[in-house]
Amino acid sequence: MTQKISKTAAILVIGDEILSGRTKDKNIGWIAEQLNEMGIDLIEARVIADVEAVIIRHVLELSKSCDYLFTSGGIGPTHDDITTASIAKAFGKKVIRHEEAVRRLLVHYEDTDIPFNEARQKMADIPEDAALIDNPASAAPGFILENVYVMAGVPPILQSMFEGLKDKLEGGQKKMRLTVQCGIGEGTIASIMAEISDAFEGLSVGSYPWFKPGQFGTAVVVSSKNREQVQSAAEKLQMLVQQAGYEATILAEGQD
Amino acid sequence: MTQKISKTAAILVIGDEILSGRTKDKNIGWIAEQLNEMGIDLIEARVIADVEAVIIRHVLELSKSCDYLFTSGGIGPTHDDITTASIAKAFGKKVIRHEEAVRRLLVHYEDTDIPFNEARQKMADIPEDAALIDNPASAAPGFILENVYVMAGVPPILQSMFEGLKDKLEGGQKKMRLTVQCGIGEGTIASIMAEISDAFEGLSVGSYPWFKPGQFGTAVVVSSKNREQVQSAAEKLQMLVQQAGYEATILAEGQD
Repeated sequence: MTQKISKTAAILVIGDEILSGRTKDKNIGWIAEQLNEMGIDLIEARVIADVEAVIIRHVLELSKSCDYLFTSGGIGPTHDDITTASIAKAFGKKVIRHEEAVRRLLVHYEDTDIPFNEARQKMADIPEDAALIDNPASAAPGFILENVYVMAGVPPILQSMFEGLKDKLEGGQKKMRLTVQCGIGEGTIASIMAEISDAFEGLSVGSYPWFKPGQFGTAVVVSSKNREQVQSAAEKLQMLVQQAGYEATILAEGQD
Repeated sequence: MTQKISKTAAILVIGDEILSGRTKDKNIGWIAEQLNEMGIDLIEARVIADVEAVIIRHVLELSKSCDYLFTSGGIGPTHDDITTASIAKAFGKKVIRHEEAVRRLLVHYEDTDIPFNEARQKMADIPEDAALIDNPASAAPGFILENVYVMAGVPPILQSMFEGLKDKLEGGQKKMRLTVQCGIGEGTIASIMAEISDAFEGLSVGSYPWFKPGQFGTAVVVSSKNREQVQSAAEKLQMLVQQAGYEATILAEGQD
């Protein structure tokens, strides 16, 4: 069986408020989980400032290095929302007032006392040749230009946009992941983990120590796209840890 | 008055578990807050995989582009902890078994039933010419090599390491930040924010819409190293928003 090569992705979080520590990013972790479920390999995430030259440099670099680049932040109505113009510039595109985006915003603000003023009209400015990303949460669309998926920064809005994107992305075989909970510190079973890692080609073995008052242990996570391999590796690890005299329990799939 | 140029920093989070979505990063936000308090400008943060060539590339790139590079993750006792060896290689240094690090670990494991085995001894391997970073939480030290500060990934351990580093870092003038809570959507007051941003050189004006059931508004955050400017800008913004017919309250410094 030839294994299909997975699509790769990167995330670019654009926002001074994350770099200042004022706002804690929630988008990297959320998108990471979604991509993992879809079998798309997230290879990198970056957080950068709201500065045109900086946005252009990172968008070009990351869009070349992976199949999908997801950005979050900077597409609202205010003066500091410069993501759309910067990404258009990165690809040598003009920004146009997009008719369908205007229509959606008009519908959204209809029968409210919120004025569809010049600032809000700016949210209908989209790079030419870009496709819209639906925004069920607050109407103002994101867009797809080349392999760059441009979304809002507010987590519930970003999430509503991403949900609608899923069937446009080519997923792959999801990695299977099993956790073996071991009742001992990671240093004691390090050689067992190394042995398992060496014994199964392409298997990833991660080691996550945890501490509670009066207790400690290690969650050993084995993962791979080969389900049988993951099952065998988890069982072998459990056996070796138990033989060494410690507790080891394989959790049900999906439990950590 | 000439304004001292601030030191710049970047963060490199090293860990497959963040990219898979299994673990949510907490280190970027925490370090960002600390740096902000110290008047050090965080210019970028990245999350990358536990792969030697990848670690080397990003460490070299980021250490050149800023004054301080802080890394988190990959310095434990297991086979997947390759940060130390990779960073040593990046700078053409050998890894040596560090006597003082061995001593600290011996003291730490003394009178416990935890064996100081080969895997745990690996935590005393440090690049030659590096200085140790104290680890009050779990003894195994981090290290400083060139301008790279290498810390553990587990948040309480990283935090205990960073606290001890603070007096080794050259801080600058802290930015003052004031939040003006406005009882209206950001699109309605976008032109006011742009006016304030244009009127005060070097002032940053950020706009953060919020939603609750039945309520919405915008937190407008004005910040700069010039305290008087921030105060004037917040008052002018408040006045203009109130004149436009909406509520606007300047929160006490430190409140968001």
